[in-house]
Amino acid sequence: MKKTFLKNKKKIQFLIIGLGLIGGSIAKRLSKNGFEVLAIEKNKSHLNYAKKSKIIIGSSEKIDSTKKLFVIVALAPKVILSNFDKYLDFFYKADFITDCTSVKKSLLNKIKKNKLEAKFILSHPIAGSEKSGFLNSSEDLFKDKISIISKHKGLTIPTLQKCKEFWFELGSKTHNLNPKLHDKIFSLTSHLPHIIAFSLIALFSKRKASEYKKFIGGGLKDFTRIAESDPQMWENIFSLNKKNILKDIKDIEKELDKIKNFILKDEGNKLEAHLKKIKKTKESLNR
Amino acid sequence: MKKTFLKNKKKIQFLIIGLGLIGGSIAKRLSKNGFEVLAIEKNKSHLNYAKKSKIIIGSSEKIDSTKKLFVIVALAPKVILSNFDKYLDFFYKADFITDCTSVKKSLLNKIKKNKLEAKFILSHPIAGSEKSGFLNSSEDLFKDKISIISKHKGLTIPTLQKCKEFWFELGSKTHNLNPKLHDKIFSLTSHLPHIIAFSLIALFSKRKASEYKKFIGGGLKDFTRIAESDPQMWENIFSLNKKNILKDIKDIEKELDKIKNFILKDEGNKLEAHLKKIKKTKESLNR
Repeated sequence: MKKTFLKNKKKIQFLIIGLGLIGGSIAKRLSKNGFEVLAIEKNKSHLNYAKKSKIIIGSSEKIDSTKKLFVIVALAPKVILSNFDKYLDFFYKADFITDCTSVKKSLLNKIKKNKLEAKFILSHPIAGSEKSGFLNSSEDLFKDKISIISKHKGLTIPTLQKCKEFWFELGSKTHNLNPKLHDKIFSLTSHLPHIIAFSLIALFSKRKASEYKKFIGGGLKDFTRIAESDPQMWENIFSLNKKNILKDIKDIEKELDKIKNFILKDEGNKLEAHLKKIKKTKESLNR
Repeated sequence: MKKTFLKNKKKIQFLIIGLGLIGGSIAKRLSKNGFEVLAIEKNKSHLNYAKKSKIIIGSSEKIDSTKKLFVIVALAPKVILSNFDKYLDFFYKADFITDCTSVKKSLLNKIKKNKLEAKFILSHPIAGSEKSGFLNSSEDLFKDKISIISKHKGLTIPTLQKCKEFWFELGSKTHNLNPKLHDKIFSLTSHLPHIIAFSLIALFSKRKASEYKKFIGGGLKDFTRIAESDPQMWENIFSLNKKNILKDIKDIEKELDKIKNFILKDEGNKLEAHLKKIKKTKESLNR
């Protein structure tokens, strides 16, 4: 990718709000690539560690108004919303702003309300992990991953270009997906599987764990790995993507009921035909 | 493991009934280890291929009555039940018989009815895969895996010892688990996750697949990998483990409803506390 906006590293400062898994990984990669990185983080020991190890040069006191300010908000979805006003000064000063969250609609409303739609663009790196927090962050987290860019009305073309260059700088490819469709698609492909994994482990905890523990093979371990994900972030996502998720839970229960009824009524042939059709769908998804 | 019954390879013949993923893998490993292997398989091209490539020396016509006959039934659970009488002659001739299935109760009833409980032992290698059939079989399928041995009343100690030696010969460790508990535990740890994966893909097929396909990340791919598993085998398992599975589907729906209600009522704090508790349970399962 030909760089326009990120070409002259000396003229840019990045301000990362939130040094968790995502923010920490962004800061590590950007500083490694030779950018000046600042960060806001309430955990002072993480912030100091980041300073000492030259991942960042400081916090907001180091903002240099002669340089372009690129703000990356890497907070949990509800935390962004409830602290939006606190960061407004930085947003107004900024040349470019993006987030990293898995729910778009409510944040877009905030952006519009504050007339930031020209320079605040929604993006979402598909690079999460059940491991959360700064201590698990890595400069290579985004390498060869996809980041979703959700365009909205009022966005300027330079903002879009900056966003593409930003994720490219971190090693990712980008895909476009409008905010509404983003929330609908990720409800099914990511949020619902998390709800299922959490529910499966909740069910486990009601049985005699000692009996079951030995027999949790590789399959189920993979299946429930995501139940170790950050509870606060996922509560935020589930709550903010309420409409889509409630529909998806209802729909998956319908599918479970379908199989349940075949079993209940001893309709083995119908059940086998149903599973065959599903296997074909799955195989077509792999292509 | 000190071998008693499998020590003298010249005095034993293995008869594998069903050359699918499991039966094929058993035949490959045993012949490689220097045992004489026979097989019964309705797919003639697979049977001929196995003969030509010296995996087996022939079918039931090659049974040598001067040798001990070890019968391994590697058929889908319902197929064993409906063909049990057809294979009774071999079972009566046999010195040792085991199965490889994921449901135990109904087969145990058949064994008792036919007074085979002294030499027919239930076992279940935890080595399945979403890849099925002889063409996917491998001599190393059971290496470092666990095989469950389900002891029942009337079993002789030599039969148990033969079963342990048999799985050890294939590279597996063994665990004991009584048939009733086996079916209860595998309902939750294996059968239910398969039902969920099948249901998720069924739900996918109701949405515009083209929209979703690009965004099925690594996580969901892992999550639904098992929806490619053999439909016939899984219908058999679901139907035969009816009672346990119906309870588990009901229970997972209760857990889904719990999260659904927190979201519906905007009870974010309760939801986060619930997810935190689950995360802790999951982490304790890893230990």
